[in-house]
Amino acid sequence: MAFVTEDNITDLAVTRWATAQSPRLAQLMTALVRHIHDYAREVELTAEEWMTAIEWLTATGQISTDKRQEFILASDVVGLSMLVVQLNNRFAEEATPATVLGPFHIDGSPPAPFGHDMSDGIPGTPLFITGTVTDTAGTPIPGAVLDVWQADADGTYEAQMPEIDEARLRAKYQARQDGTYCVRTIAPLGYTIPMDGPVGDLITKTEISEYRPAHVHFLFEEPDYRKLITHLFQQGADYLDTDVVFGVKDALIVPFVEHDPGLSPDGKVTDEPFLVAHYDFVLEPTI
Amino acid sequence: MAFVTEDNITDLAVTRWATAQSPRLAQLMTALVRHIHDYAREVELTAEEWMTAIEWLTATGQISTDKRQEFILASDVVGLSMLVVQLNNRFAEEATPATVLGPFHIDGSPPAPFGHDMSDGIPGTPLFITGTVTDTAGTPIPGAVLDVWQADADGTYEAQMPEIDEARLRAKYQARQDGTYCVRTIAPLGYTIPMDGPVGDLITKTEISEYRPAHVHFLFEEPDYRKLITHLFQQGADYLDTDVVFGVKDALIVPFVEHDPGLSPDGKVTDEPFLVAHYDFVLEPTI
Repeated sequence: MAFVTEDNITDLAVTRWATAQSPRLAQLMTALVRHIHDYAREVELTAEEWMTAIEWLTATGQISTDKRQEFILASDVVGLSMLVVQLNNRFAEEATPATVLGPFHIDGSPPAPFGHDMSDGIPGTPLFITGTVTDTAGTPIPGAVLDVWQADADGTYEAQMPEIDEARLRAKYQARQDGTYCVRTIAPLGYTIPMDGPVGDLITKTEISEYRPAHVHFLFEEPDYRKLITHLFQQGADYLDTDVVFGVKDALIVPFVEHDPGLSPDGKVTDEPFLVAHYDFVLEPTI
Repeated sequence: MAFVTEDNITDLAVTRWATAQSPRLAQLMTALVRHIHDYAREVELTAEEWMTAIEWLTATGQISTDKRQEFILASDVVGLSMLVVQLNNRFAEEATPATVLGPFHIDGSPPAPFGHDMSDGIPGTPLFITGTVTDTAGTPIPGAVLDVWQADADGTYEAQMPEIDEARLRAKYQARQDGTYCVRTIAPLGYTIPMDGPVGDLITKTEISEYRPAHVHFLFEEPDYRKLITHLFQQGADYLDTDVVFGVKDALIVPFVEHDPGLSPDGKVTDEPFLVAHYDFVLEPTI
């Protein structure tokens, strides 16, 4: 019988979790045990710190709801979410890079034609996002669907508004036969992550900025292409270099060019000043 | 500006959390970031596995209540709780070793005289635990308080019974002037940890035994001595070598000796067969 000592406990725990019936679960759990133990040994975790961590984890679970996922937020602010994105989306260099999904995507957005205004009267500066959807060889992907969503001028997503039951600042645009698309929306603004929970408590104990830079989300799920979840960021926006969730990539920053009232990319006349962002999305074929 | 890549994200996250105002929090968080990232890279964590982990953590927080702490249980079954016990209780070799507190201790148990029966009519085989409380030099500690608690024959602690409002299978015994003590209780039985939550779900995916061997808990908080939280285990009990929380130490296993009805260690006559366990607790002075 091997009773427990400071020296043997990690091996005992690893041996035990190696009995998981699924080899992958055995790998995940034994590596987890090793890393958790290594961490506790390295920092000489005290009993009080351990209890603080238990209470923090419990509060993080308990504040989470259908509309708020505090553990995803925790994963975001330590860079884990973005690391997992990188590990799972090693695309060809010419493809559009991925970034975090975030907690605010809603399935089943309504289809929208070329140039449709998904802001639907919500206040903000009109923004047109135009370009093409192609494969990595530059060949257009006719009919590719761009699932688009963003926050309003207060930094609030529809997913955070329980009272809303129709699509708000989200739509599924379809590229035309030549791969071109046109989204009409309002300019996004930077916003703070929720700071009234355990993640916010931790961030206030540091110099970390709690803001995300202005961005619009895009999701592509085309047959025969790798799934792409990404954002476009406004060039020159605040917080680009301090994004609290580590989501910014150089290739995803685009100028939002100012235009006077007049003909706009949707082929109509826009009677107030508007912005135009141009971006060509490039999807990587799966075969 | 350093935008995010698979290669730089860990350094970026470490640099950011190093800004914690408290040097200790900076140490804890930067080491945590490094270990979490190393883990994700080592196992090449998939997006689906990451989401399963998020959901598991959330469920673990949400099932926890005043009476049930599923994160402590999670920490127990991966050996983290016992590792933290070891790291924080490096006692002299002659001192009684520590083991896990467990989630079932209740503060403020009533004082009990030498030989008091804390089982108070709850069914079970009478068990007397006797011995001394001394320092590491063998000098008695007169009046030392033994805070004792255990589960009943169904494996249930008072802390798990919301309807109970008087002390049940718990009491604070005081050693006599010569350091001797005598606890009367009932023989504890092995029991299973709660298996109806996220921790149980995970354990059923392995060959891990969900049982703890029979034990009685003791806690000592004497001025001028290091705090001691420990158990005594019954020699020969089931599950000693597979304790699901890794709590068993060789020095904490004692024979429960069978006796015929007659004079018992409390100085009275016990009219049914009883058990006697002898253990001399040794506390380490703080100076």
